[in-house]
Order: sequence, then structure tokens, then C-alpha cells
Amino acid sequence: MPDPGYDIPARIGDPEAAIATPALILDLDQLEANIDRMRADARRLGVDLRAHAKMHKSADIARLQMTRGGAAGVCCQKLSEAEALIRAGITDILLTNELVGAARFARLVRLAQSARIAACADHPVQVAQASQAVIEARAAGAPDDLELELLVEMDCGGGRCGTPDTAATLALAQTIADSPGLRFGGLHSYYGSAQHVADPAERDRLLALSIARTAEARDAILAAGLPCPRITGAGTGSYETEGASGVYTEIQPGSYAVMDADYNRIRRADGSPPGGFGQALFVLATVISTPVPGRAVCDAGLKALAVDSGPPVAHGVPGVSVRAVSDEHCTLDDPEGRLQLGDMIRLIPGHCDPTCNLHDWYAGLRGGRVEALWPVTARGKVF
Amino acid sequence: MPDPGYDIPARIGDPEAAIATPALILDLDQLEANIDRMRADARRLGVDLRAHAKMHKSADIARLQMTRGGAAGVCCQKLSEAEALIRAGITDILLTNELVGAARFARLVRLAQSARIAACADHPVQVAQASQAVIEARAAGAPDDLELELLVEMDCGGGRCGTPDTAATLALAQTIADSPGLRFGGLHSYYGSAQHVADPAERDRLLALSIARTAEARDAILAAGLPCPRITGAGTGSYETEGASGVYTEIQPGSYAVMDADYNRIRRADGSPPGGFGQALFVLATVISTPVPGRAVCDAGLKALAVDSGPPVAHGVPGVSVRAVSDEHCTLDDPEGRLQLGDMIRLIPGHCDPTCNLHDWYAGLRGGRVEALWPVTARGKVF
Repeated sequence: MPDPGYDIPARIGDPEAAIATPALILDLDQLEANIDRMRADARRLGVDLRAHAKMHKSADIARLQMTRGGAAGVCCQKLSEAEALIRAGITDILLTNELVGAARFARLVRLAQSARIAACADHPVQVAQASQAVIEARAAGAPDDLELELLVEMDCGGGRCGTPDTAATLALAQTIADSPGLRFGGLHSYYGSAQHVADPAERDRLLALSIARTAEARDAILAAGLPCPRITGAGTGSYETEGASGVYTEIQPGSYAVMDADYNRIRRADGSPPGGFGQALFVLATVISTPVPGRAVCDAGLKALAVDSGPPVAHGVPGVSVRAVSDEHCTLDDPEGRLQLGDMIRLIPGHCDPTCNLHDWYAGLRGGRVEALWPVTARGKVF
Repeated sequence: MPDPGYDIPARIGDPEAAIATPALILDLDQLEANIDRMRADARRLGVDLRAHAKMHKSADIARLQMTRGGAAGVCCQKLSEAEALIRAGITDILLTNELVGAARFARLVRLAQSARIAACADHPVQVAQASQAVIEARAAGAPDDLELELLVEMDCGGGRCGTPDTAATLALAQTIADSPGLRFGGLHSYYGSAQHVADPAERDRLLALSIARTAEARDAILAAGLPCPRITGAGTGSYETEGASGVYTEIQPGSYAVMDADYNRIRRADGSPPGGFGQALFVLATVISTPVPGRAVCDAGLKALAVDSGPPVAHGVPGVSVRAVSDEHCTLDDPEGRLQLGDMIRLIPGHCDPTCNLHDWYAGLRGGRVEALWPVTARGKVF
């Protein structure tokens, strides 16, 4: 946990101007509007919503998504992330990632005794290790009916993890179903990179291929006499397509809750933004140097803002743009001279997930005042 | 502080293979060799060494640099970073950055009562705020002779912060010297971006210009009858040049202690690496998926490795290269099939500073075992 008194950027009730910068801030009205909108969309599409908590890593936001937002649970990417969220009361989790090694499966089995948790596999070695971990836990005193739910992660186009074809997917599903202590939970079929393809026609083409592959794998599993209870995937940039496909039973969007500059650039074929979500997350920064006319330098750099998906975008200050991001600074072009030394500026991060992971706290704002201070529960939980 | 038992990736005495990944690891022999080498270089060049702690953010490494490594103290970039290091016993700090606002100067004045700390200014408003903070602290009971040391940051070529020309530098130095409660400490003249220029001739040209500008400013200050006790700047990619210039009294390298893939690519005009430092920092990762021949996916992504200066480089596995880095994964090309599921791999981060800031712990290795577990003392201290 962060040091109280040193690391907390604000106090409840503070005006925005009193927040120590750089700080991660949330527009609570917009956050709630985004969460409401996704709840309605998932209901309309007839799919379960399992919000991806790797984005915000916050138990408070996860809870909001599961109560107000109608999510059945959350997704995590890392075991330590799931451990942190479970300790904070979030107890329905899908680990959308592979694990390997006895130590990790022992941790997973421990979690399965205090939460509903499932994980993914794409190789028989992982399945054997998972089964062995359950057998050992039972032998060590865990309930005799303790089971682990494993889904097969299939590669539906991304070329990263996942079984490469339907034959491998079916074979692994069968292996899981046949392994003591394991339950086959279905398919994890997620195509992250397709969501960031700028051309809507190309994006739709990739998603159609991905959905066809997923349907083919499902049909092969059902034809083999196995159940396929869950088909899960899709993110903020694609959930409308997978959700409407009739193939997916569950969607996993994360960024929709807060959005970022990269997702804000994505458009549907008709030019409208998918989902219509608004920007709720900003990095609040202070102008610490105005050395020459037209240039302002603020106190948020690479350690406060992830730049893997492009630089941040200056918000609410017409004419101001980000020229460069270095370790501790953003250098801003300000041709009209709008920024003065000491001014505060809101920056929209290029990529929300790794940006949130840099901070210890969210300051939630409503009506210009800090209403909530939420720890980034799983900040830095990478293993 | 991180949660004990959950967030610590290893125990003292563990073999490397027992470390929970992804984890930040240090080759302690190489770290010490780098620190020894820089001590010798600074002595040979006849300049003070003030190692930049923004890179590692570790009180333990700072202490090693100040004792074994001969550093007079360290540099920090952020007030909260300095606060964390001072609380951990590092009490000679130069803040190589501008501050603005009464709240920040009040914090600086508080630190000046328990450490030797100086900061930079590039605008008369900052100087007035600093002076006011000292006056208010004295009125509130601080010693009557309490002073703040301020250096003028001059723009020697980088085009970020800093006074834009010698006239502005001299005027600000005079303003500091004339302000109650302040002491003019000299010039901060740092040209970070020049160090990363690949062409040695162009890099030398930029550094020569920068040194000439710095000398001109110093001469103007001395001619005006002011002392200019310290001229500080230079980093790992340029300290040999500034150190030998006769202009700089102090060098501020940071990356030399551990190095990164970006600095490893820098060459002198004769093709040799500046300083001859070796790679001491790695992100240790585990192969969690080998879905098809020729591809391996490991468990370190954007949240464990900064990619602003390029992707990480796979170390010690011939033929293996990084194809893509996503939030939680590196996808590796492995045409010769050297990596198996569960194998561990060392990755050299593209940029050490923001990579270290992602982690809570360093695991220091010697002879294949964990000898030291050092917290990243100022991890996330951005404000």
C-alpha cells in the first residue's frame, strides 16, 4: 500500500486545483455514463458482460461495474492482479491468460477456494500442471470436489497466444475434459489488435474471420459431444460485432469505462464512434516552465503517461498540442500563449491500461471537487 | 510499501529460477563494476559525480553510488522522489527540475531542514515563490539563517525547460542572488536528447555548441560579479565530453549503473561504447505460450517494460528476437526453437528509467542466487 500522507494526491472535498500533480483523475459523471451505456448494450446484445479489470486495476471501479454496471464479474490478466482484487472483495474472475509452472497453479488453486476463478490454456503441459495442482490440493486437505475451470484460448487471428487451429482447440478441450480435477469452461477467443485497425472495412473483415473461426471451433467441440458453456472475448473496439454475432456468450471490454486517445480515434464504418463512450480519465498536470513564447512544459512524462499507443492529447485548451514526452515532462506547443506558469492542464492518455498502472490513486471528481479517492488496487501486480 | 508476502518476487538465497516473473533483476557484479568505473572516470576527469537517482529510484543503489561509487550525492527529478529518498537516508540531493506553486516550495523548504537540497529555476515567478516560502518558514519558526539553494536551468540546446539565452540566464541568477532567503548555486545545463543522437559527429557537434553556451553563461555571471560555484549536467551518453570540457564541475549520469538497450547502441566516433559499461539490469520473464513452431510468448509486457525507446532485447538466447510487445506479453520470434514452455528469459529493457519505475523490487543476483532484495524506494513518486 502507498504511504499515507505522502502518496495520496488529494483529500476528499478538495477542489481540482488542490490536487498534487501529475495525478490520475476520473470524471465520475462520465465514468458512470460509460458504465450505464455498456450495461444497456450488453443487455440489448443478449450477452454477459465481464469487464476487463486489467485496464483500471481498481476494486472500486470493478465493484461499480458489477453492481450499477451489470457485469457478471471481471477479467484479469495476471495471477497477482486476481489475488489483489479477490482480497478486495471481487470474487468472480476470468484469468484471460495462460499460466505455467507448479507454483502458479498452486496459487490458482488456492484462489479457487475463495473465489469463482477460471483461467486459460493453450498447451497440454499447462493442462497437466493444472490437474496435478488440484490433485495435490485435494490430497493436502482441500475439498474432494474442488475443481478448476479451464478455457481453451484459441488464436482467432491475433497471432500471439492460443491454439492455432480447430483440431488443436478440440484436442485441448478434450484433454481438459478428461483431466482429473478440471472442468472445461469453453473458449477464450480474443482479437485485441483487430480493434485498433483504423480502417473500419478492414477491421470488420478481420472480425468476421475471427468469428467464423470461433464458430467452427465451437461446432467441432459440440459435435464431439462436449459442452461449450462459455465463448468469451471482444473489447471496447469490437464488442458490438462479436456481441451481435450469435457466437459469443460473453464480452470483455475494459477501456469503455474511461477511454483513451487511441480508442477515441476508432470509428465505425458510418463514421460514428463505437459505443459512444466519453473520456472519463485524465492525467492532471501542472505547467512548470514557460521558457519561450509558444512553449509550455508540464510535469507529466513517461512515468505518469504511457506512450506506447501515441502521445497524450491536451484536453480543453484549444490550440495546445503535445510536441514531445520525456521521462518527467510533456513539452507542449502553445502558439496562442494560452498556458501560464502554474496552470493545470488535463491530458488524455494515449493508452489507458499502462497509464493507470503507473499510479497509486484515482482522484474521482464531481462538480469540480474530489468525491472519491480510490487506490489502484492491483497497481504493479505483474506476476 | 508493497504488501509483504504477495509483492516480493523472491526470497534471499533463492536461485534465479525461483523468482516470480516478470521481475526486475540486477547482476550485482556488473552493477558494482559499472559503479567503480564511473567513480574512476569522474576522478580522472576532475569533476564531482552526482548520480541521477531518477533512473533507479532506489535508496540502496544510491547509497552504493555514494559510498563505493564516490558520488557526492544524487539528483532527483521530483519532489516526492526526493522526499522518499531523504526518508531512506539519502540526504544530499539536487532537484534537476523546476517547481512552481506555494505548496511545492513549502515542501522543498521542509526538506531543506533535514537534508542538503537544491533545485532549479528558469523563471522569476519560481524564484519569488521560493523566496516567499523561506520567509514564511522562518516566520513560522525555522532557523533565521535557513536558505534555499537555487540553480538556474539554462536551455543549452534541448528545447525543453531552461532560460533561452545568456541574458535571461544572467538576469535570473541576479534575481536569485538578490532574493531574501535564496542562494544562487550555479548553472544546471543538461542536454538529454543529444546523448541519444546516433551519429557520433552530430552528437559531438551538438555537445560542443552546448558547452560553448554554458561557458558563455558562466562568463557573463562571473563578469557581473556573481559567484558560479557549480556547473552541473551531462549523462551517461555524454559525460566524457562535458567532463573533459573544463566548464562543468559536476556530472549527473544515471543509466551507467545498469544500462539499457538504447544506451547500448550509442557509440563514440571510434566505434567504442562510451564508458564501457555493461548490462546489469534485466527483466526476467517466463515463456507462458509456445503456440506454433517459431513463436514463444513470455509474461512481460508494457506493464513490466517501457517501450518508449524501443522494444526490449532478448539476452543470451541466440536467434531469439522480440516481435511485439503488448500490455502483458512479449511475442518472441524463435526460428530455431530454443525456447520451451516454462523457460525463463532475460530481457534488456529499451529504456531503464521508466522500466524501473514499473516495479516494486529489485532482486540482486550473484552466482545465480538472490543476494539482495531492494525496494524501488521512489517507485511511482511522480509529484
